[in-house]
Amino acid sequence: MLKQQQQDIEELRKLLLEQQDVINQRLGKTEHKVKKLAKSKSKVRIGRNGLRIQSKDGDYAFRAGGRFHADFAHYNDDVTPMGSGARLRRARMYFKGRVLHDWRYKAEIEFAENGRVGPRGVWLGYDGWKPVALKLGNFQEPFSLEEMTGSNTITFMERSLVNAFAPSYHVGFGARGHGDFWSLSGGLFGQDISNKKDSIDDGWGAAVRATIAPILSENKLLHVGFSSEYRQTNSANKVRFRTRPESGVTNSRLVDTRSIQDVDNTWLFGGEMAAVYGPFSLQGEYIHNRVMRKQSANLDFFGAYVQGSWFLTGESRPYNVKNGTFKLIDPLHDYGAWQLGLRYSWLDLTDRDITGGREKNFTIGLNWYVNYNVRFMMNYIFVDARPNRNGIDETPNIFQMRGQLVF
Amino acid sequence: MLKQQQQDIEELRKLLLEQQDVINQRLGKTEHKVKKLAKSKSKVRIGRNGLRIQSKDGDYAFRAGGRFHADFAHYNDDVTPMGSGARLRRARMYFKGRVLHDWRYKAEIEFAENGRVGPRGVWLGYDGWKPVALKLGNFQEPFSLEEMTGSNTITFMERSLVNAFAPSYHVGFGARGHGDFWSLSGGLFGQDISNKKDSIDDGWGAAVRATIAPILSENKLLHVGFSSEYRQTNSANKVRFRTRPESGVTNSRLVDTRSIQDVDNTWLFGGEMAAVYGPFSLQGEYIHNRVMRKQSANLDFFGAYVQGSWFLTGESRPYNVKNGTFKLIDPLHDYGAWQLGLRYSWLDLTDRDITGGREKNFTIGLNWYVNYNVRFMMNYIFVDARPNRNGIDETPNIFQMRGQLVF
Amino acid sequence: MLKQQQQDIEELRKLLLEQQDVINQRLGKTEHKVKKLAKSKSKVRIGRNGLRIQSKDGDYAFRAGGRFHADFAHYNDDVTPMGSGARLRRARMYFKGRVLHDWRYKAEIEFAENGRVGPRGVWLGYDGWKPVALKLGNFQEPFSLEEMTGSNTITFMERSLVNAFAPSYHVGFGARGHGDFWSLSGGLFGQDISNKKDSIDDGWGAAVRATIAPILSENKLLHVGFSSEYRQTNSANKVRFRTRPESGVTNSRLVDTRSIQDVDNTWLFGGEMAAVYGPFSLQGEYIHNRVMRKQSANLDFFGAYVQGSWFLTGESRPYNVKNGTFKLIDPLHDYGAWQLGLRYSWLDLTDRDITGGREKNFTIGLNWYVNYNVRFMMNYIFVDARPNRNGIDETPNIFQMRGQLVF
Repeated sequence: MLKQQQQDIEELRKLLLEQQDVINQRLGKTEHKVKKLAKSKSKVRIGRNGLRIQSKDGDYAFRAGGRFHADFAHYNDDVTPMGSGARLRRARMYFKGRVLHDWRYKAEIEFAENGRVGPRGVWLGYDGWKPVALKLGNFQEPFSLEEMTGSNTITFMERSLVNAFAPSYHVGFGARGHGDFWSLSGGLFGQDISNKKDSIDDGWGAAVRATIAPILSENKLLHVGFSSEYRQTNSANKVRFRTRPESGVTNSRLVDTRSIQDVDNTWLFGGEMAAVYGPFSLQGEYIHNRVMRKQSANLDFFGAYVQGSWFLTGESRPYNVKNGTFKLIDPLHDYGAWQLGLRYSWLDLTDRDITGGREKNFTIGLNWYVNYNVRFMMNYIFVDARPNRNGIDETPNIFQMRGQLVF
Repeated sequence: MLKQQQQDIEELRKLLLEQQDVINQRLGKTEHKVKKLAKSKSKVRIGRNGLRIQSKDGDYAFRAGGRFHADFAHYNDDVTPMGSGARLRRARMYFKGRVLHDWRYKAEIEFAENGRVGPRGVWLGYDGWKPVALKLGNFQEPFSLEEMTGSNTITFMERSLVNAFAPSYHVGFGARGHGDFWSLSGGLFGQDISNKKDSIDDGWGAAVRATIAPILSENKLLHVGFSSEYRQTNSANKVRFRTRPESGVTNSRLVDTRSIQDVDNTWLFGGEMAAVYGPFSLQGEYIHNRVMRKQSANLDFFGAYVQGSWFLTGESRPYNVKNGTFKLIDPLHDYGAWQLGLRYSWLDLTDRDITGGREKNFTIGLNWYVNYNVRFMMNYIFVDARPNRNGIDETPNIFQMRGQLVF
Repeated sequence: MLKQQQQDIEELRKLLLEQQDVINQRLGKTEHKVKKLAKSKSKVRIGRNGLRIQSKDGDYAFRAGGRFHADFAHYNDDVTPMGSGARLRRARMYFKGRVLHDWRYKAEIEFAENGRVGPRGVWLGYDGWKPVALKLGNFQEPFSLEEMTGSNTITFMERSLVNAFAPSYHVGFGARGHGDFWSLSGGLFGQDISNKKDSIDDGWGAAVRATIAPILSENKLLHVGFSSEYRQTNSANKVRFRTRPESGVTNSRLVDTRSIQDVDNTWLFGGEMAAVYGPFSLQGEYIHNRVMRKQSANLDFFGAYVQGSWFLTGESRPYNVKNGTFKLIDPLHDYGAWQLGLRYSWLDLTDRDITGGREKNFTIGLNWYVNYNVRFMMNYIFVDARPNRNGIDETPNIFQMRGQLVF
């Protein structure tokens, strides 16, 4: 009997050890596999910000996305025929990413407008010297709050009349720095790619923009900014300023300086202000455009806008202190966010011998942010061009709608 | 001895419990890691339908893909010179996806043809009210079986002569519903983006298409459909109908109404029929195009085609009941699928004062579907344009080949 | 006492078996999950070669990437005005992949240059018969080492003057084979897509290129190659040869044959040589272009270049024996790689009645390869066009810089 027990105990011990071995082996294998799996995995995320793929160490990243804006506009013409209809206002696809940790890039193509298919944001950036970031390529000259705020984010369907002066996308080199409540950016730029003429030396420009946000909390903001651009004309010595009536379906411009000859350089000075108080927001800019002519007297053009908006659903316009602009909101509720906006803008393109006309627009806007990615917009614009580019007074009205997707 | 045994037993018990603890701990950790891994993982799939990435909850999805068609054509000219040669007929890249479950989108660029680089399918869709689906953006007006069937899927290299009437891509808004054996779609559309003129109000169109499949099983189909489009011309009041001789390398058109003036609107009526019986398929359409002029008498143009095809390798044309069209086949065998096709098509663009010509084409086609993604095509076309757009009789022949990739 | 022990032993045995069951079950489940995870996983890799996604079985693969080159040039004009400035020289996005193991594809769009937006590499390939690879679509005709070496890899900002003769991208069909130290490629091609005229039959060309590398080790290479193209003109019977002064910001050409009439065909013969010895490299090509006219005497144009380069940081130019070209280097050091280059190139476009001019360029280049993906370049060019296309002697200088990204 005792002997039997002894055997049982031995047998048990053997069993136990065998089991331990087997389990250790199986578990070890599985643990190893899990480790390998976890390690091999690039992080693939997909959500409201599109597709984002990152290497495990974060040194390499890749994103793909885009946007499109489909517009409908009905023009209640007065004098100038504008051509009601529907149009793809923008359609863009981009690749974006990071190589070897410090180098960032974007390659974006615009393919909606016939004859304007081409590059938008195409740049190489370096942000190894934080908080300074460098950029080389085709990107927007730092000038004006409205210009620097993305077309997905602006409160009305089109930027205001004043945007006629903003330099927008040029090939150049820029630097940006920021603190907790300020940003500073500047750069040197060539001229508009589509204006490139073979036998003529390009013009060039230097731009700088400084912003400060003395009040900056979750739902409160006071933003003040200043920007300026000096631009040397190309060797043809011509400039032209004109703008659509804050509507992108037409190509008609009610105000237009037409080609101004004999220009040496232009100076832009812009002041900007924005305030957010919970769902309420106020924003305004003033731009002075001085055109220096070689033989004739200098010209001074002016423009300004002021706009207010109110989120009926309680959202607050989010602010990006890094570049002193607004960001896209994320609705608080399942039914999305509703925003009311009013804008008054004003542009004077007449001075001395140049009679480009004067335009004042008053816009009522209603936006429905269905979610972070989808927005529907509706604008009604009372246009007052007295006189227009041909010296004739006209006051057409515009009704327009947009469906917008960011992906 | 007994004491020794007692000790052994205690020792074993301790060992057992210790082992249990250790294994529990290790196993618990591994189980946790596996759970996290499985959870963190966006689903990334790659296969014949290209790249598909989905968030775990399915609320967000992203796809990238495209197509291209490389054509060679030899024209046995009669009167009109057509210009033999090789061409990229189509090259497209797209991003496609889903945001917040119910919102779908596509952004597609065509970049093969010089001067025609631009958007194809660029739309935002909502399918939260199943089985109804809404669409906003640039997409094909619902009209004609042949037009709605993708260029990757059609039996011959080019759609038939009748396609001269089909409205194709316009910016607009549409809705679609379907049941187990029917589909209904309709929409309101602007006009062709490339026809946009600044000072002229766009025309607009309303289109509707209904299909029914009274017989619909694995390898058998009877499909009947009807579509119609009403189109108000733009304020220039002109329309034009013309078509290439079912060949995409040339830009020559043998039949062409040239610009028809003083047009108020056009009405299109189309009837379609298709049948599949195993590897055999029969398909036909008839379209009547009524052009309403303001001062002059109305015009009536007609077109039709009938085509048959036979899969020598036993495949059967697959049907998509959701929008009443055919889908791309997947070959049954390793050596791919072989398909023979015959088509007779007919277009009459002459009525009253408009002498656009009459064309009748007879086509023999042979297709090799190497796999789901790759297809090679060969068409021989006997063209009979008596008279052509210039009132001259001609009967050229065309030999053409295509290499096609879908990715 | 004994009985108690007996009970203890039984209890232990029970415990042990239970535990074994539980652990077996949990471990089995986990092992299964891990297996499933590992299996379900498409391989997603991201790194210096961009995004690469592969199905587990390797049958399907997808890559996305691109490049852009941002240039600045200052022209020290002599006679011909060239237009200093900045420009996006190239901006490309591509999708690339593999379907069903043996079929490869690329779809690449160039979107930087206005009016030249369109397809670059758009092809379908088959490599099921290794080492032979077939290609169909739009791709470079196999001709000249410099032409076949990618624009991301070439030592100077622009290919040499001789490149005026290289046929570049055409729609066609090609085959390639290679051994351990040789490559052979050839194809049949249509004509330049942008030269397509409707009523004119395309021309066509046949090209072949053979390379051999009798010395080929880690840091040593001797490469010799020969290529030839026969080209039948289109039915307009015209050809034209011209080139920019190795600078891409201007569109001015100092040498230009202008349209040569009455041409039946052209023959190109090119000889190439390259040697690498550690950080040193030598490379040269000579191309003879014979233009066969129908009525008039034949024309002979010539061009050649020789260039040397030295990696100050010790890298060696890597070679791709598969197609007899150079590959992009990967810097050895954290501070990147520095390369010095000298080139002398020469082009004669004057023969008999054709006075296209003669140009000789001498270039000093300095490259900084920051990492595999980012490169900055600087070229100074002494141009000697005596006479230029207008029979006037001129010797302008060019200073140019480039920022380059490959992603």
